[in-house]
Parts: sequence; C-alpha cells; structure tokens
Amino acid sequence: MPIPPRPDSTSNPPADTSVITVELGDRAYPIAIKSGETGLADPSGFASHFLDAVGDCTHAIVVQDVAIADSAGSMITQSLKSSPLRLSVIQIASGETSKSTDRIAQLWNEMLDTAADRRSVVIAVGGGVIGDLAGFAAATFTRGLRLVQVPTTLLAMVDSSVGGKTGINLPGGKNLVGSFWQPHMVWIDTDFLSTLPEREYISGLAEVIKYGVIEDADFFEYLEANIAAILQREPEPTRTAIAKSCESKARVVADDERETTGRRAILNYGHTFAHAVESTAGYGVMLHGEAVSIGMQMAAELSVSLGRCDRELLERQTALLAAAGLPLTWEDADVNDMIAVMARDKKVAHGKLRFVLPDRIGNVELVGDVPADEVAAAIRACR
Amino acid sequence: MPIPPRPDSTSNPPADTSVITVELGDRAYPIAIKSGETGLADPSGFASHFLDAVGDCTHAIVVQDVAIADSAGSMITQSLKSSPLRLSVIQIASGETSKSTDRIAQLWNEMLDTAADRRSVVIAVGGGVIGDLAGFAAATFTRGLRLVQVPTTLLAMVDSSVGGKTGINLPGGKNLVGSFWQPHMVWIDTDFLSTLPEREYISGLAEVIKYGVIEDADFFEYLEANIAAILQREPEPTRTAIAKSCESKARVVADDERETTGRRAILNYGHTFAHAVESTAGYGVMLHGEAVSIGMQMAAELSVSLGRCDRELLERQTALLAAAGLPLTWEDADVNDMIAVMARDKKVAHGKLRFVLPDRIGNVELVGDVPADEVAAAIRACR
Ligand SMILES: NC(=O)c1ccc[n+]([C@@H]2O[C@H](COP(=O)([O-])OP(=O)(O)OC[C@H]3O[C@@H](n4cnc5c(N)ncnc54)[C@H](O)[C@@H]3O)[C@@H](O)[C@H]2O)c1
Ligand SMILES: NC(=O)c1ccc[n+]([C@@H]2O[C@H](COP(=O)([O-])OP(=O)(O)OC[C@H]3O[C@@H](n4cnc5c(N)ncnc54)[C@H](O)[C@@H]3O)[C@@H](O)[C@H]2O)c1
Ligand SMILES: [Zn+2]
Ligand SMILES: [Zn+2]
Repeated sequence: MPIPPRPDSTSNPPADTSVITVELGDRAYPIAIKSGETGLADPSGFASHFLDAVGDCTHAIVVQDVAIADSAGSMITQSLKSSPLRLSVIQIASGETSKSTDRIAQLWNEMLDTAADRRSVVIAVGGGVIGDLAGFAAATFTRGLRLVQVPTTLLAMVDSSVGGKTGINLPGGKNLVGSFWQPHMVWIDTDFLSTLPEREYISGLAEVIKYGVIEDADFFEYLEANIAAILQREPEPTRTAIAKSCESKARVVADDERETTGRRAILNYGHTFAHAVESTAGYGVMLHGEAVSIGMQMAAELSVSLGRCDRELLERQTALLAAAGLPLTWEDADVNDMIAVMARDKKVAHGKLRFVLPDRIGNVELVGDVPADEVAAAIRACR
Repeated sequence: MPIPPRPDSTSNPPADTSVITVELGDRAYPIAIKSGETGLADPSGFASHFLDAVGDCTHAIVVQDVAIADSAGSMITQSLKSSPLRLSVIQIASGETSKSTDRIAQLWNEMLDTAADRRSVVIAVGGGVIGDLAGFAAATFTRGLRLVQVPTTLLAMVDSSVGGKTGINLPGGKNLVGSFWQPHMVWIDTDFLSTLPEREYISGLAEVIKYGVIEDADFFEYLEANIAAILQREPEPTRTAIAKSCESKARVVADDERETTGRRAILNYGHTFAHAVESTAGYGVMLHGEAVSIGMQMAAELSVSLGRCDRELLERQTALLAAAGLPLTWEDADVNDMIAVMARDKKVAHGKLRFVLPDRIGNVELVGDVPADEVAAAIRACR
C-alpha cells in the first residue's frame, strides 16, 4: 500500500491565509499561516487545506497536547468532522518528559490500536514536544506515515514545526534519537497563541530575533520598529514576524536538508552558549528561548572582541532582545563549567571550539579555532 | 558534525571477494561476498574493506547476536583491531523477541554509553533480527549513523541485509515500526554459515528459490542443476546462489527503494499465503522460509487454476523446493482462518485479495480481484 506522491501544491488558500513553500524538490511542502477574525469561527478551513496537501487518505490521527485539547485540538477535530476521514485522537501529557522512549513506545501501540496503516496521516497539534514526538512516530510507524504539523506555541510555529527534525530524548541527553521527516503541511493559526503564557511567548521571540541576525537584516529592522506591537500579539505584526521567520528557516533548510553542507549550522547562532547555559543551570530552570537570548549576547560579545563585527551590532541586538522582555545576562554563569560543557558539545570539531558568529546584522559565519580565553571573556561579559 | 558523503566505491576487493553494487544513486553501496580458504584466517580483509566503504570515521559499534559472538563477532572485532578505530561491542540475545521497543530503547542508551556520535558506524553482525534492530538503531541515533551489515544466516545474506528495511515489532504485529535506511556496505562471508543449524539454512533456501521464480529463469535452472551441492554448502555453488540472490534483490530495490512504484511487491511472492500460514500456525512454529515454501506452492497452484501459467511451472517449483528439503504442504491449514488473515493483510487493496502470481519461471505479476473460492482451492491443494 504505497503512500501517494505529494500533491503539487495547495490550491486556493482562504483570503486570510498566506502560504510559504519549503523548497525541497519532491519533498516540498506548504506552510499555511492563518490569522484574523475567522480563525476559530471557520473550522472548515483546515480540513480542505489538509486534504489538498496530503492527497489520498482515509484516516487522520490527531496527536495532541492535553493542554490544547479544548482549544486548538478541538478546532482541528471539529474541522475534520466535515471531511470523509475516519478520525482518531491520542492525548499526550504536557512537557518535555513526554519526549521519552516509554512514551514513543506507547504511542506506537496506540497508533496500532487505531488501525493505522499507510493511508493514515498523523496530525501533531501542540508545541515542539508534540511535534517532535508525533513527528518521530509518523516517521517510523510502518516505516513512514504522512505528517501535518499544527504548532500551537510561538517556538513551534517559527522553529520546530519547520525543517523536518523529529525525535525524542534519552535520559543521557536531549534529541539523541530521531529522524529527518518532512511534513506534508505546516498549519499555523495565530489565534492559537491567545492562550499561550506570556513567558512561553517571549521565549519564542528569541528565535524570531535570531533569524534577523543570521540572515535577514530587513526583518531585523522590521522587528526593531514593531517589537512592542508583537509583544502585544497584535494580529498583523505577529503574523508577519511568524511568516518572515518561517521563510528564513525554510531558506536555510532548503539549502541543507540533512545537515550535510554545513549551512544549517547557522540556525545554531547563540545555541552553543545556550546549551551550556541550559545544561549548567539544570534543564527546565530557564526556557530555551531565554537561554538562546543570553547565548546570542555571548556570541555577539565574542564576535566584537575577535574583531569580527562592530559594537553597534551588539548594541542593536541588546536593545531588541531587551525590548522583547528577554534576559541578556545570567549572573550565575560558571565559566569553567560552561566551557567544559561546550567542549563535549557536538558543535566542537576535533576538540576546538567552534561558533556561529555575526559579522553584520543579517550575516553570520562558522568560526573555528576560537581560543578558550576569548570564550571565557564573552561569558563573563554577560554575567 | 555532518556524516561524510559516501565514498565512490570499494576499490580493490581481495581475490576471493566479489562485489555487487546496489544502484541507488547517492545511496549506492557494495555487497562484498567473500568465500574460500582465507575466510577466518585473514581477519584484516574486513577492516580495509570497511574503511573503504564508510569513509572518514573514528568509532565502530559492533552490535552482535550472542550466538555468533565467538565466531563471526570475534572475527569482525579482531579485524578492526588492526584499524585505528575505537571499538565498542554490544551483545543482543538471540531470537525474535529482541526486536522489541524495550530492546531498542536499551540499545539507544547503550550506544550513548559508548559515546557514539556522527563519526561512529554501526556494524550489525547476526541474522535478520540483529540487522533489523541494529539497522533501526543506526537509522535513528542522532538522526542517522552509518551502517554496515554483516549477515550470518542464509536468510539475512540473501534477503534482510540488502534493501534498507530496518525495524522492530510491536506486541500487536511484526515489523510495524522502522525506517528505510540503506547500509554503506553489506559484508557476506560464506564461512559464517558453517555453524548455522540445518533447519535455518534450508529455510533460507526458500528465499533463494523465490528469486529464480520471480525474476531470473537462468538462476532457477542453475539451482535445479546444483541444489544438492548447495545443500551440502559446497563453497562455489553456495557463493553463486548467494550472489545471484543479492543481484536479484538489488535490481528490485534499485527500481523501487521505498515501495512507491509497486515493483518491490514482487519480493512478496508466496508471502501473502506465508503470512497467513505463520499467523494461523502461531508465530515461531514454522520458520519463515518454511512458510514461504508452502506459500509459493499455494501461489503457483492459484496461478495454474486461474489459467495464468502452465502446470509445468508448478511441477518444476515443487521439485526444486522438495530437493532443497523444504515443506510443500501444511496439513493443518484452516482455509477460513487463513483467508480471514489475508483479508486483514496489508497486501489487500480495498478489501479485494491481491497476489503476486507467476506466469512463467522468471516472471510474476501483481494480480488483483482474485475470487476467494479460488484462493480457498489453492490452500486446499497444499494441505
Ligand atoms: N524539531 C526541531 O527542529 C526543534 C527546534 C527547536 C526546538 N525543538 C523542541 O521543541 C521543544 C520545545 O517546544 P515548545 O517550546 O513549543 O515546548 P512545549 O511543546 O513543551 O510547549 C510549551 C508549553 O506550552 C503549552 N502549550 C502549548 N501550546 C499552548 C497554547 N496554545 N496555549 C497554552 N499552552 C500551550 C504546553 O503544554 C507546554 O506546557 C523541545 O523539546 C525542543 O527540543 C525542536
Ligand atoms: N529487513 C528485511 O528486509 C527483512 C527481510 C526478511 C526478514 N527480515 C527479518 O529477519 C528476521 C529473521 O532473520 P533470520 O532468519 O536471520 O533470524 P535470526 O536473526 O533470528 O537468526 C536465526 C537463528 O540463527 C542464529 N544464528 C545466526 N547466525 C548464526 C550462525 N552463523 N551460526 C549459528 N547460529 C546463528 C540466531 O541466533 C537465531 O537463533 C525476522 O525478524 C524478519 O522479520 C527482515
Ligand atoms: Zn533554539
Ligand atoms: Zn521472506
């Protein structure tokens, strides 16, 4: 029972929905971004888009975070009730602990209980945890089912739902098991953000700002002008911020789908420091975006002190992150512990420290062979 | 840390090693078949071949069946000791129960304990159980490590190690979770067969004979002439039988890597019946190849009665399977139970029974819409 080839493209998006295409040849897919008044009031929008994007199928398996079961989750299932598809719903407990070997084993069995076969499509509704877990289940159940991502956190909308990385954690480390598995569609409804706690929303903004620094100077300027409105979640600038972020990630992913050319590494701007912050602080203490904000500050400090960019870049980044309500420093940073973590990190090539560093707003380079004392100084500058 | 691109091809195979290439574009890989006196006496042969095939790497993780730890397993690790690679060995208990969600979770953690990263290569040493389990672990650890298959059963040499299917079972069914993940090399040393129990060896011959029926009439004739010598495991005809089988599977897989065109379905000749036999007999009662032999007989009976082929085809197949020591009938076959299983089987398109049926030795077709009473008659004919 082969999976049908991907349909050519989504045909007629509703007026309030814009579409970005992730250009991956025969694995190309649309990111549909919907916003505005009709959101929750027009549940049929999703179902028709969905059928256009996935092609011939008989069964939809909604895998959802319990936290959004009554909002985004019920909207999606409501919409699918207007379709001829058989519908199954699987609930996942909120939080990082669901990205475990135990939960994926249970999920595989639950999928089998729904009588899933290759004509089934998995729909992941939730934040990055659900997208990664359900995405990995889709990648591996009967060696691959179609997947649609419906992100409900800002981080998932601008980052984890796009690009095809799926996976789970091991007790010994995060995201150590997984697959590259591209979805057939990403469906972003900005209305889903209305229930997202403030701290989660702000955390997501760190990745948004990251795209401006790494490869889109115009977008960085747009954010400087509109950060207050975005923070208020005003529909139009929020939608633009999400769309520009997705376009940015889609460009990078199209260049380097499976991390073979090295281009995809630019997405790790600030992340080598951030992982060291998260790891030494203890996972869960800081939100990921908070650590990324601090990490971007450390990376920019490092770039300035290596003479790779003007201090003005650092100042503009500082101002924008601050305006977004993100932390800029971490007073408990332990320089030696952080460097020890970085030395174990995958981003270290043959024992030498390697960083993604900006030379101007809108451009970063992968820099190897960075002396440890310069790294230490950058950490100290953000303490 | 990207995985390096696949090396162009293996350069200089030793004199007693022949190489078949699986033509899969940038995922092409060699099947090296070694036999003859030097086998166990020349352990360095593997290591040099291995390094040619996988390219730049620092660490080898041998995942092995405990049953062959002192023979094939120790030969492989012995050979790698002549290389600069860091070496880890992980033991897997023999038998189908190791293809479980529990065992894969443990294996992922054991791989992490070896400090595996993207410069590590997984080497699966054992039968199809080890190849499927270790292959799935390779496909998913850090979203993909390189894999080398070292099959030690006849079935694994001629079937499971070639073609990129990897996976595990769920309590509710076999091979329900997995990935398509092509190895970088398959290393077949026919000397490893010397310890294989007779019943396992004969079971593997069913798949060998299958290739002759489905797409290689010359090979079928070769088998008719040489089956006694192959049964004695004489080196030259055994090696030829394995090489021709691998060539056959490699051709089919090259045409339809991920079961999208339908061509790969021809490998299921006899298997719709065989799965019904295995399932109604209770898994483990019959070996897979034994069920395949009976299933091929049922399929040929069906083809004859549908007027799709001469009775001579059935007679030649009967004679060859019998000469190989394989069962031709199953006296306990329950027609209704078997048809019920087939109706649930993935090979059923929209509720109609579909079979791979021969029209002459060397050619099969996918036939849909087969009436249930014809299927019942074919089962009864082999009872
Ligand atoms: N695959 C990738 O490329 C990629 C990229 C970045 C991060 N990630 C992964 O993403 C995960 C983090 O994602 P996340 O930040 O979305 O975390 P998350 O999924 O845990 O969601 C954060 C919290 O918000 C809740 N929530 C989700 N949507 C909500 C809504 N609309 N209203 C109210 N509450 C809501 C969740 O229940 C959870 O408590 C991590 O596991 C990380 O490894 C993956
Ligand atoms: N991936 C594929 O394309 C594919 C194709 C066909 C079958 N399979 C899978 O392969 C598995 C069956 O493979 P198998 O028949 O090799 O079973 P197996 O791996 O269980 O091996 C059979 C038995 O032989 C023992 N053994 C292995 N090598 C030996 C040796 N050299 N000497 C002595 N004993 C040895 C094993 O310990 C085991 O007890 C099934 O799980 C099936 O689903 C996969
Ligand atoms: Zn991030
Ligand atoms: Zn088989």
